[in-house]
Amino acid sequence: MSSPRRIGHLLRRHRGTLIATGVGVLLGCALHARLTPLCPEGAACIFGPPGVQPYVEYAEIPSFWAVYDVQRILHEVRSAFQHIVVYETYFHGRILTIDGALMITERDERNYHEMLAHVPLNYLPAAQRVLVVGGGDGGTVTQVVRHAAVREVVWVEIDELVVRTARRFFPKVSAGADDQRVKLAVRNAAHWVAEQQFSADGGGLDVVLIDSTDFNQAEPLFSIHFYASLKRLMSERSILCLNADSPQWGQVRLVQFVDRLTPLFRHVHVYQSFQPTYSSGHYAFIFASDTVHPTQSAIDWTAWDELLIDTRYYTPDVHYGAFMLTAQVGGVLRQPAPRLADVRSFWSAPRPSTSSAVPARPSHSD
Amino acid sequence: MSSPRRIGHLLRRHRGTLIATGVGVLLGCALHARLTPLCPEGAACIFGPPGVQPYVEYAEIPSFWAVYDVQRILHEVRSAFQHIVVYETYFHGRILTIDGALMITERDERNYHEMLAHVPLNYLPAAQRVLVVGGGDGGTVTQVVRHAAVREVVWVEIDELVVRTARRFFPKVSAGADDQRVKLAVRNAAHWVAEQQFSADGGGLDVVLIDSTDFNQAEPLFSIHFYASLKRLMSERSILCLNADSPQWGQVRLVQFVDRLTPLFRHVHVYQSFQPTYSSGHYAFIFASDTVHPTQSAIDWTAWDELLIDTRYYTPDVHYGAFMLTAQVGGVLRQPAPRLADVRSFWSAPRPSTSSAVPARPSHSD
Repeated sequence: MSSPRRIGHLLRRHRGTLIATGVGVLLGCALHARLTPLCPEGAACIFGPPGVQPYVEYAEIPSFWAVYDVQRILHEVRSAFQHIVVYETYFHGRILTIDGALMITERDERNYHEMLAHVPLNYLPAAQRVLVVGGGDGGTVTQVVRHAAVREVVWVEIDELVVRTARRFFPKVSAGADDQRVKLAVRNAAHWVAEQQFSADGGGLDVVLIDSTDFNQAEPLFSIHFYASLKRLMSERSILCLNADSPQWGQVRLVQFVDRLTPLFRHVHVYQSFQPTYSSGHYAFIFASDTVHPTQSAIDWTAWDELLIDTRYYTPDVHYGAFMLTAQVGGVLRQPAPRLADVRSFWSAPRPSTSSAVPARPSHSD
Repeated sequence: MSSPRRIGHLLRRHRGTLIATGVGVLLGCALHARLTPLCPEGAACIFGPPGVQPYVEYAEIPSFWAVYDVQRILHEVRSAFQHIVVYETYFHGRILTIDGALMITERDERNYHEMLAHVPLNYLPAAQRVLVVGGGDGGTVTQVVRHAAVREVVWVEIDELVVRTARRFFPKVSAGADDQRVKLAVRNAAHWVAEQQFSADGGGLDVVLIDSTDFNQAEPLFSIHFYASLKRLMSERSILCLNADSPQWGQVRLVQFVDRLTPLFRHVHVYQSFQPTYSSGHYAFIFASDTVHPTQSAIDWTAWDELLIDTRYYTPDVHYGAFMLTAQVGGVLRQPAPRLADVRSFWSAPRPSTSSAVPARPSHSD
């Protein structure tokens, strides 16, 4: 008998055993899957665990998996750029993920959006024109429009489907998108910025906020070239803030951000928020300006109080506390960290008579 | 044929098929396990994933799993009280777990231990007697003995095996255990405290630090009764600090801590650290004292500088920043949060000439 015929003969003869083994393999896979509570998205788990697949995010540098139990998937769509999923979780409310990376949760999105928007805007209470790059979920725009002096928010987001998804599933987060001062441009921000006219009076943008993912089509937003183009649109008194990475788990990237911005701006500083659902729970933003220093420039806290913005995270004290870097993080950055002893602000809150507080100085930033 | 005989007959007749199915089930389980990267400790995963089982910690309230890839298990032992495991991870160095809960990682233990020890000790630079309750890994004791004025550290830890494990696998973390000023008492702290004599002069303990797990034999350490017993051993000028929970994911417990301590101490405040490897990355301590207020009592920062303690996390600015609670957390606590405007301290670091800093006030705490 030739080999193929022999194999055919053997297969026919042991057909029952082979079928039984195959059925057993499938049963074994199913059994194991039922007993294994975790199976990350994208992994080749033949059968899912019981119930709805949890949302799993793997962070390569710390070799760490964050896994969220999920009640159900509310929405899943592929745009021209990315894979967008909305989950209903048990504790974090709804969460939005893009290409398997967690973007926002209903529970703690305000930690992030309040810190990105209010920190720079409070140095410039007269700021009128704000540019938001990215931030498709609308959370940043929502915080920006709470500042009454702002007249125009130019919002450049590449993926309209993220905006639409957020408006449908996160109406409160993205409420600011309905504000008449907001102009949404569905564009690649790198192209948009390159096309803008340089205005001779130093540019019309008072505040620029970059609120971006850090992969795929967002990569050009991390180049010195992009930052330099942005700077052409800013005046001397403007502030640029952007979302960075974890000071503890993503420190190499954090230092890169600072190093790229330092040749462009006089003051480049890191500030932080407690962000449980971002890798390590410790998240950093970069603050960059030629004239505004985080602690040496004053803030008119009375003006802030008068805006009557209710916050979940941000307070004037949290504002300054956020710039206080840990010894190790402070040590790896080139610029000396801001010091609390330098804070030059008017404190509107009542102070006890024992206080030796900084004298009132209700001026604008200098 | 009777039923048992019929079954026996069927089993004999289909033995081959049954064996094949069984082999298939085992193969299927193994195959699925190879394709499933996660299988938490304690779960009934018939076969582990490829390589070493990761360390998996489940937090019930947030329905969140934290999973650390593991190079190997270095040590595993069951004491009379608990199950102690030391893992070698890829990013966090060695990690110590007790009953499946992560206690410390080499990478970020200093965030925790520096904040627990230096925050209270810096208000009392003349503190001589310190009580450490728990803290079997030695990290707290190690930070305490760096304060030169301290003459005696009474260290009450229930499980000597944790101390021995830490001294073997975390020699740097537990280095302070060798200091001659440290007296280790292997005791249940609730019993130990109850047996101490109340000293008429207001007690000999200057600082009390509770560094404890929150389950099983540690539960008595969370009662008002225990705190009241401790207070009998403290003087009016003493400070009690203890590790609490996450302000964002464990807020109910955090509020409980504050509510239990408020009847006993005039000042009860929460402070925080960025602690990536504790649930949510946001971790809280409680500060309690009758006379020392976090921002209204001065700190002699020159005395701190002269101790020449190199830190990885703690700085004078981080110290005050840690007391600045987010709007939501501050709102659920009964006491008003400390304000930066009240800080009454001498800042030893050089300040730029533009600074309107708080005047020097190099006194001890009041």
